[in-house]
Amino acid sequence: MHKALILNGPNLNLLGTRQPEVYGSTTLQMVEDMCLDHGKSIGMEVIHFQSNHEGALIDAIHAAKGVQDGIVLNAGAYTHSSIALMDAIASVELPVIEVHLSNIHAREEFRHRSYISRVAVGMICGLGPQGYVLALDALRSHLQGE
Amino acid sequence: MHKALILNGPNLNLLGTRQPEVYGSTTLQMVEDMCLDHGKSIGMEVIHFQSNHEGALIDAIHAAKGVQDGIVLNAGAYTHSSIALMDAIASVELPVIEVHLSNIHAREEFRHRSYISRVAVGMICGLGPQGYVLALDALRSHLQGE
Amino acid sequence: MHKALILNGPNLNLLGTRQPEVYGSTTLQMVEDMCLDHGKSIGMEVIHFQSNHEGALIDAIHAAKGVQDGIVLNAGAYTHSSIALMDAIASVELPVIEVHLSNIHAREEFRHRSYISRVAVGMICGLGPQGYVLALDALRSHLQGE
Amino acid sequence: MHKALILNGPNLNLLGTRQPEVYGSTTLQMVEDMCLDHGKSIGMEVIHFQSNHEGALIDAIHAAKGVQDGIVLNAGAYTHSSIALMDAIASVELPVIEVHLSNIHAREEFRHRSYISRVAVGMICGLGPQGYVLALDALRSHLQGE
Amino acid sequence: MHKALILNGPNLNLLGTRQPEVYGSTTLQMVEDMCLDHGKSIGMEVIHFQSNHEGALIDAIHAAKGVQDGIVLNAGAYTHSSIALMDAIASVELPVIEVHLSNIHAREEFRHRSYISRVAVGMICGLGPQGYVLALDALRSHLQGE
Amino acid sequence: MHKALILNGPNLNLLGTRQPEVYGSTTLQMVEDMCLDHGKSIGMEVIHFQSNHEGALIDAIHAAKGVQDGIVLNAGAYTHSSIALMDAIASVELPVIEVHLSNIHAREEFRHRSYISRVAVGMICGLGPQGYVLALDALRSHLQGE
Amino acid sequence: MHKALILNGPNLNLLGTRQPEVYGSTTLQMVEDMCLDHGKSIGMEVIHFQSNHEGALIDAIHAAKGVQDGIVLNAGAYTHSSIALMDAIASVELPVIEVHLSNIHAREEFRHRSYISRVAVGMICGLGPQGYVLALDALRSHLQGE
Amino acid sequence: MHKALILNGPNLNLLGTRQPEVYGSTTLQMVEDMCLDHGKSIGMEVIHFQSNHEGALIDAIHAAKGVQDGIVLNAGAYTHSSIALMDAIASVELPVIEVHLSNIHAREEFRHRSYISRVAVGMICGLGPQGYVLALDALRSHLQGE
Amino acid sequence: MHKALILNGPNLNLLGTRQPEVYGSTTLQMVEDMCLDHGKSIGMEVIHFQSNHEGALIDAIHAAKGVQDGIVLNAGAYTHSSIALMDAIASVELPVIEVHLSNIHAREEFRHRSYISRVAVGMICGLGPQGYVLALDALRSHLQGE
Amino acid sequence: MHKALILNGPNLNLLGTRQPEVYGSTTLQMVEDMCLDHGKSIGMEVIHFQSNHEGALIDAIHAAKGVQDGIVLNAGAYTHSSIALMDAIASVELPVIEVHLSNIHAREEFRHRSYISRVAVGMICGLGPQGYVLALDALRSHLQGE
Amino acid sequence: MHKALILNGPNLNLLGTRQPEVYGSTTLQMVEDMCLDHGKSIGMEVIHFQSNHEGALIDAIHAAKGVQDGIVLNAGAYTHSSIALMDAIASVELPVIEVHLSNIHAREEFRHRSYISRVAVGMICGLGPQGYVLALDALRSHLQGE
Amino acid sequence: MHKALILNGPNLNLLGTRQPEVYGSTTLQMVEDMCLDHGKSIGMEVIHFQSNHEGALIDAIHAAKGVQDGIVLNAGAYTHSSIALMDAIASVELPVIEVHLSNIHAREEFRHRSYISRVAVGMICGLGPQGYVLALDALRSHLQGE
Repeated sequence: MHKALILNGPNLNLLGTRQPEVYGSTTLQMVEDMCLDHGKSIGMEVIHFQSNHEGALIDAIHAAKGVQDGIVLNAGAYTHSSIALMDAIASVELPVIEVHLSNIHAREEFRHRSYISRVAVGMICGLGPQGYVLALDALRSHLQGE
Repeated sequence: MHKALILNGPNLNLLGTRQPEVYGSTTLQMVEDMCLDHGKSIGMEVIHFQSNHEGALIDAIHAAKGVQDGIVLNAGAYTHSSIALMDAIASVELPVIEVHLSNIHAREEFRHRSYISRVAVGMICGLGPQGYVLALDALRSHLQGE
Repeated sequence: MHKALILNGPNLNLLGTRQPEVYGSTTLQMVEDMCLDHGKSIGMEVIHFQSNHEGALIDAIHAAKGVQDGIVLNAGAYTHSSIALMDAIASVELPVIEVHLSNIHAREEFRHRSYISRVAVGMICGLGPQGYVLALDALRSHLQGE
Repeated sequence: MHKALILNGPNLNLLGTRQPEVYGSTTLQMVEDMCLDHGKSIGMEVIHFQSNHEGALIDAIHAAKGVQDGIVLNAGAYTHSSIALMDAIASVELPVIEVHLSNIHAREEFRHRSYISRVAVGMICGLGPQGYVLALDALRSHLQGE
Repeated sequence: MHKALILNGPNLNLLGTRQPEVYGSTTLQMVEDMCLDHGKSIGMEVIHFQSNHEGALIDAIHAAKGVQDGIVLNAGAYTHSSIALMDAIASVELPVIEVHLSNIHAREEFRHRSYISRVAVGMICGLGPQGYVLALDALRSHLQGE
Repeated sequence: MHKALILNGPNLNLLGTRQPEVYGSTTLQMVEDMCLDHGKSIGMEVIHFQSNHEGALIDAIHAAKGVQDGIVLNAGAYTHSSIALMDAIASVELPVIEVHLSNIHAREEFRHRSYISRVAVGMICGLGPQGYVLALDALRSHLQGE
Repeated sequence: MHKALILNGPNLNLLGTRQPEVYGSTTLQMVEDMCLDHGKSIGMEVIHFQSNHEGALIDAIHAAKGVQDGIVLNAGAYTHSSIALMDAIASVELPVIEVHLSNIHAREEFRHRSYISRVAVGMICGLGPQGYVLALDALRSHLQGE
Repeated sequence: MHKALILNGPNLNLLGTRQPEVYGSTTLQMVEDMCLDHGKSIGMEVIHFQSNHEGALIDAIHAAKGVQDGIVLNAGAYTHSSIALMDAIASVELPVIEVHLSNIHAREEFRHRSYISRVAVGMICGLGPQGYVLALDALRSHLQGE
Repeated sequence: MHKALILNGPNLNLLGTRQPEVYGSTTLQMVEDMCLDHGKSIGMEVIHFQSNHEGALIDAIHAAKGVQDGIVLNAGAYTHSSIALMDAIASVELPVIEVHLSNIHAREEFRHRSYISRVAVGMICGLGPQGYVLALDALRSHLQGE
Repeated sequence: MHKALILNGPNLNLLGTRQPEVYGSTTLQMVEDMCLDHGKSIGMEVIHFQSNHEGALIDAIHAAKGVQDGIVLNAGAYTHSSIALMDAIASVELPVIEVHLSNIHAREEFRHRSYISRVAVGMICGLGPQGYVLALDALRSHLQGE
Repeated sequence: MHKALILNGPNLNLLGTRQPEVYGSTTLQMVEDMCLDHGKSIGMEVIHFQSNHEGALIDAIHAAKGVQDGIVLNAGAYTHSSIALMDAIASVELPVIEVHLSNIHAREEFRHRSYISRVAVGMICGLGPQGYVLALDALRSHLQGE
Repeated sequence: MHKALILNGPNLNLLGTRQPEVYGSTTLQMVEDMCLDHGKSIGMEVIHFQSNHEGALIDAIHAAKGVQDGIVLNAGAYTHSSIALMDAIASVELPVIEVHLSNIHAREEFRHRSYISRVAVGMICGLGPQGYVLALDALRSHLQGE
């Protein structure tokens, strides 16, 4: 049974209450529950962590090494500026599927660059909470087929 | 029953034979079959079109108006330069899920920009042929939920 | 009697149905009829061609050489990227009046650059379908040795 | 009967004597007369003002508010640098048709950017003095609700 | 008793009538009255000058030398392009508090750069007419050696 | 009675000892006291928080939601790089007045860009500790519906 | 006996009539004949294809796979913008010698960039029709020596 | 006897009092006297005009046509932004020698660009008031056909 | 006896296990031991701190003020983005020697910029763990007034 | 009989020993011999000069004036930075064929710009030592008035 | 009696024969003679050196230290690229007057940047050989403390 | 016993006399002596070469091949512009430790780029003459297989 960490970055704790016209009304708790349920249905053990602290996200990635089989990562706004998160992923050598709720390439210019993309297996964006579920599917395929 | 067009752009006809270290060994025919099968399993009617001609892709998008419910589009290299394709999508006002086999943001700088993303619902990249299957899931959700 | 080609590029076949808040509700057929009528009233023989294919537009420009006296060209989105269209105009040495329905300089940054402008006599934009009529006036004046 | 202000910016007082290979040999007086005559023929009352002073052009735009129905503006070199003129147009909320004698997009790079275009209805360039006449036609159509 | 010049640049004469959704409905006269009143209440003698002419603003800055103790300056659109105004301030060596009614950093890119800021003591923006009142407070503090 | 959070970012704990030629000799404790006193005098309840941790600042902004009526924010160096802080402000939908002790636009190029400004009501910079006091005034006016 | 495709892109059909001061007076037919003759003299079988359609050029490159031993390619204006052509060459893994009649690096800035160069063996430019002949020599050497 | 206009732009009226560490302590009156004297000694009739108004400088250049034989121009800060002044010089077709008191290329980046230089015969900078004297020498030589 | 803080930033806790082809196989513990030993041999008291949290690194720099005589800093990926760390160093006015294990200028473009370098005494990179030892030598020399 | 100078720039003396995976194993002596032999076979007298000194290459170009009929130039790394070499070629007005062993447009970005190309007749790159032979052919054709 | 070195850089030895439409027909020998004569007439001892070698120019600047009182430098094309020449001037701390025969700011973009200008007293350009004479005047004035 | 070349570039011959506030008062002779002594103490044979000529530095690098075991290189201002020096290092495949006396990243923008860094083992800067001594230590470690 594969194990996956769902890792969410800054401001995602406010999901559902934050700018619903951009991010929808699903709360983070609901996303977590969806992921747990979907994980079960496809035979993956899913845990979840969220932090607004870049350092805490790096610590969580380090801690996943040797414990998890892969990571579904929505790094929020750190996506666009954090070389340290990118290096953390490269350091632990776990497959990462990058997720964004909104279509970051259809928003402000500064949201088009992703440091995470440079080291991620792939990216899913603009598909709302379903993106997490699809990312779990993708991670399982990656783990099974690589 | 929703109807979807899977639209593939330049060089994707060579899939499976073209640079397999980048794009994998699955052929376009196999991708089409996967999509047809998956479409059936989730209740979507899927058709497929591929062309190396930018104009033919635009024509196909126009033709989809009023006939299809949405488009899964891998515009290949035209992704990065074709404002005309972007305008075609905006013109027909059909939901588009953008797909790329490879992670375009982890490749050359000139592959990071996507005109398609500006008008697409969302994007899935780096997940190989499975990306098309996930895109169909996403398109169905979009059509059902929006 | 001067002869003019009205040449329209990608997505203009959808005129009237495409984003009417940007492009208005006049159809391409109506624009053609306006041009034919206005041509007659000022003594110009007008023909019309539209294509979504960059290559077909180039072919049409080549074919106009020695047949037409000038071209009214709305190259649509190819305006901003097609050096080949620019070269085609330079090759046939026919006077070209560039037309855009919307004010391209008041829209996205990537619509501000026009390769056509580098070789056109002049440009009319933002004036909707009337722009074609004014362009015919301008072409006639140019041909009469303004 | 619609009323229009023809507003000309820096160096246009020298028209006809200034670099005739770029701007032609028609004088500003002749342009004014053409505009007056054409205005009469299409039922518009035309007045004219020219200044080399950016501030005087702004003052003239302000003064047109509530007096004129629209403006035909050739802001000359201020086109490329004057945010203040752009703001003046936005402030008075009169329709402006931008005119340039030469094709500014076929000249030096720094003449390609127009602040006026951001707030103008449309633009006509490269058609010499006839551009003013066409601009009056365009302004009338715009005022008539086209 | 400190003396201050309130200096307003292009289009600010239209305050209250110009794009009220951006600039509010307070007129320039009302701003002046507020400043006079507030000046009195904090022991400052306030005079006011407005012009749409860059040169007239420079002249006013020069004239303030040896007469005024400081300047509250809203240079309007000249803020973003006028090196000459910047040099004028540096020339007279009077403390300047820069004011903008709207938050210029939340608007178009070309409004983010301020030449005035390079030589001003400080800047207040986005606070509407109250910005002038706060600027007088700031100027008094600065003059009192805080 | 309105409630305001004074939120200070990295290195501001060293205020008064850090580069006094740039930031002055007033300590953060003195700034806090000034704000408390001024708050009382204008009928605002003021609390204060400082952290060098970007994540802690985000947490504090989240915590202010539903508790405070507005925020006076000096994000220090995070001003120039933190999209996450910008998103946090947008998420909680509280009015923010941005403050900087020094005139950031008169310093190094990389200090000219502010992500905070994109979502703040307004900005006050270059006025030293008094900037906080003026920001409280501005926040009160904003809350009172001016 | 090696087989080579001479592939010419947009506007090259007008060779000899198009801007002879830039491209010379030799027609495309003459270039083809030169290539056929030279091919014979060095033991190469040469065929020729020209199109103004980017898609047709891609199709031709695909069709050359397994049929031709190499390609001499003058992609004309598509050289500077077509990532799809570049991908097509990479897909078929045939050696390509890039040819340009004029010295593209001595012309407009936008002609300096070549996507073809990224995947071509080498490039010959500025040597007129002789460039094709030299390219055949180079292709033969490459095929013999690699 | 050749006739020359010494034309000075914004802030040069403050010469001698303005930032003497950059511009020296010689006043504009002294510069004018130096120029008059030197003009006499080399047989040139010199007149002088200064304005802080861009429009007034343009008017002065226009007025010099047919009256003066050449211009010595220090356009001050307008040097770096005024396309209108550049066009004015091109319009009157008088030889212009550009002068700057300070070495503009050793100062801020935005002072390195000169629109005047594009149409001036030559430029002298960094040599203080003597630059005007040398410019008169240069203008005389130019007029004498050297 | 001089006291030095060896401060390591994000991901350096994984040293020895992280991408050994880039960073080598020496662990952070081994680096610390090397530094302690070398410190003793040259008469320096060395302590060590590592964190993945930008804020914790800033706190550590603040805490070093008045306690340590200097800092050897490897800020990892924060090197390239953290203005806050740069400000922290400037605030405490302790000499800093910047160290990087790999040659950051021979890697990706975004690793070439260092905010730390703007305020550090000097930098040593590309020399692996020995870089720390050399940095201690350099720090001692600097402290001894060389 | 035409006379040609083969001029080689920095590091080409190491040819055959320098990075053979990039530049091949042919030595400079072998290239010279190839050129001499080929020259003889096509009736050209060929001499050769190599230097690592930019100044010596300029001197050699100057010396070729009136002695040689043309130059085959591989300026090595100076290609990308030497305006002085470009000026030298323009000064002596001899036809130059530019040669590069590797395909400079497929290498690092900074090797894409060539100052030599601005004044050369044409360029051959990526074809190894054969490039020199083809360049001699091209030079002869050019001299014969092609 | 002041002593001055006239230092000329690459390709200036060809003066009079090199592109006379740009640089005129005066030879370098004539320029030297003019400078010697003018030097005598104003009491300056002038010597001259020219080289095409950047290193030789640096050596000459070094050698001038303690021997010459100032330098008139036309660094030719090295002006635009040589930081080493700039450093050499800064090292010897002699006043330098920069000269260019043509108006470098009216030519190609890459000739607009001058590293020499950053350390020179002033610059004279576009005035042909007379520029050297004026530069000697300027140098004398500078040395006399004007 | 390892052999090392200490190679110094332009203007370093003036060390000790050149801008001592930037480069210190130690002469190049003193640096050489320090290196010789330190070399002896760690068992390295050190020789030294300095030149202001880029070509001579390239020649010296070539000559070191097969004679020296490594190079300590301070390329001075050529660091920032010389691709030829970079290529020379790559050609001889000797380990190079790059040294700069000052902290080049804390100086002008154009000193931040180093072509040498792309091929050097590592870099030491800002540590004055001691940098050379540390570089010898680093070179020995590198040669000993660290």
